[in-house]
Amino acid sequence: MYAIGERINGMFKDVGAAIRDRNPEPIQRLAKAQIAAGAQALDVNVGPASADPLGAMEWLVKTIREVTDAPLAIDTTKPDVMRRGLELAGPGSIINSTKGDQAQLDIFIPMAIEHDASLIALTIDENGIPRDASGRGEIALRVVAAAMEKGLPTDRLMIDAVILPVNVTQATPGHVLEAIRNVKLLCEPPPKTVLGLSNVSQGTTQRRLLNRTYLVMALAAGLDAAILDVEDREMMDAMIAAEVLMNRAVYADDFLKAYRS
Amino acid sequence: MYAIGERINGMFKDVGAAIRDRNPEPIQRLAKAQIAAGAQALDVNVGPASADPLGAMEWLVKTIREVTDAPLAIDTTKPDVMRRGLELAGPGSIINSTKGDQAQLDIFIPMAIEHDASLIALTIDENGIPRDASGRGEIALRVVAAAMEKGLPTDRLMIDAVILPVNVTQATPGHVLEAIRNVKLLCEPPPKTVLGLSNVSQGTTQRRLLNRTYLVMALAAGLDAAILDVEDREMMDAMIAAEVLMNRAVYADDFLKAYRS
Repeated sequence: MYAIGERINGMFKDVGAAIRDRNPEPIQRLAKAQIAAGAQALDVNVGPASADPLGAMEWLVKTIREVTDAPLAIDTTKPDVMRRGLELAGPGSIINSTKGDQAQLDIFIPMAIEHDASLIALTIDENGIPRDASGRGEIALRVVAAAMEKGLPTDRLMIDAVILPVNVTQATPGHVLEAIRNVKLLCEPPPKTVLGLSNVSQGTTQRRLLNRTYLVMALAAGLDAAILDVEDREMMDAMIAAEVLMNRAVYADDFLKAYRS
Repeated sequence: MYAIGERINGMFKDVGAAIRDRNPEPIQRLAKAQIAAGAQALDVNVGPASADPLGAMEWLVKTIREVTDAPLAIDTTKPDVMRRGLELAGPGSIINSTKGDQAQLDIFIPMAIEHDASLIALTIDENGIPRDASGRGEIALRVVAAAMEKGLPTDRLMIDAVILPVNVTQATPGHVLEAIRNVKLLCEPPPKTVLGLSNVSQGTTQRRLLNRTYLVMALAAGLDAAILDVEDREMMDAMIAAEVLMNRAVYADDFLKAYRS
């Protein structure tokens, strides 16, 4: 599974403070630690409280690029911040994210093409987050159609079926699994699927147990990628075991070590 | 999920010795410990080495019945041992198991009706274990048809889609998940599904990780029951979290404790 490290996000106190003080050390340490723990890409989000999101994103991307060439998922809703992040991060980046309404797709699909980026599309539109799997599938289909029309290869789309906290809406985890399975049937090559995993456990008292349990379920449903806490070793062990059980990684007696190396 | 404790099986050294010496203490301790750990039923198997399987089963069931009224899964291929076990265990027992070939179904389906028992049917027939999900589905359909014909309610059938060790055949875990989903579509009310979980990790070096990871996947695919090591607390935590995520148990901040109580 394509693991995108979630930690470089200004919503976390240490990262928020580092951005405010333009202190590269915590950012670069987190970048390296996440790569070492198995991240194949790093999410980069200046956080909700940034007074100067454009300047903060510029500084963050440059600071990370001093220590790693790993793909970055530029995580912002602001088109100008996104564009600057993509320019500095380079080709092979990930746009995180667009919603599924036409106005946003008209901005972000061309941007993905122009910057040779993948595009995470949330199954959210003008009417909000759908209640069930079929509502998510309808928006995903609209995104796929728009990508085809504008010329973005469908396997550079990453559909995020939007998991919500299980303590808020307990039917959603099941709906999202169904949506993940259905998205893979929309076109050929199919879009990739992705989740912002930690959201499933937001506000609960058993965050790590719920995160790793849901990751295993989603992986078995065909999930391709997740934005997650790669430094949670028990979760990464569960992810690797799930990959082996789904025949997506080769079994070896030492499969945990083999996968990590 | 309906958890059937796997430990009272002569294949385990302590149980084999207890049976040989007709020593009730280890058996009764295991019965009580498994119930306390969350088992809703107990598997009872005299083991492969028993010289007198009928006498051993009689003694085992009587010994267990001194400490618990929990349903017992009488685990033997021998019809006379099965019949005696069911007689002593009482109504509500589980026949574990029949294969899906006509000769065995002709014996065990009437026995399930006569003894008011559920019937675990393995998706194995004269040709062995099918390679894929559709082969498993075909046998399951044959079992369902035979149950309907003979008058066993289909929800007293428990279809076991036969998991094999992941280090022997790595495609099988995925096939079994697909078979579990398909079995639920065969009839109304659908058969129950069950797995002998520990088999998935037989001969591997990461047994507990693989067991709990596969249990979560199977539960998300709709698994109703499993024969498993209920004293593996991490696995039971994963099972409970999976039940909550699939909306099969109510979320509470204290859901682990709530489920166990």
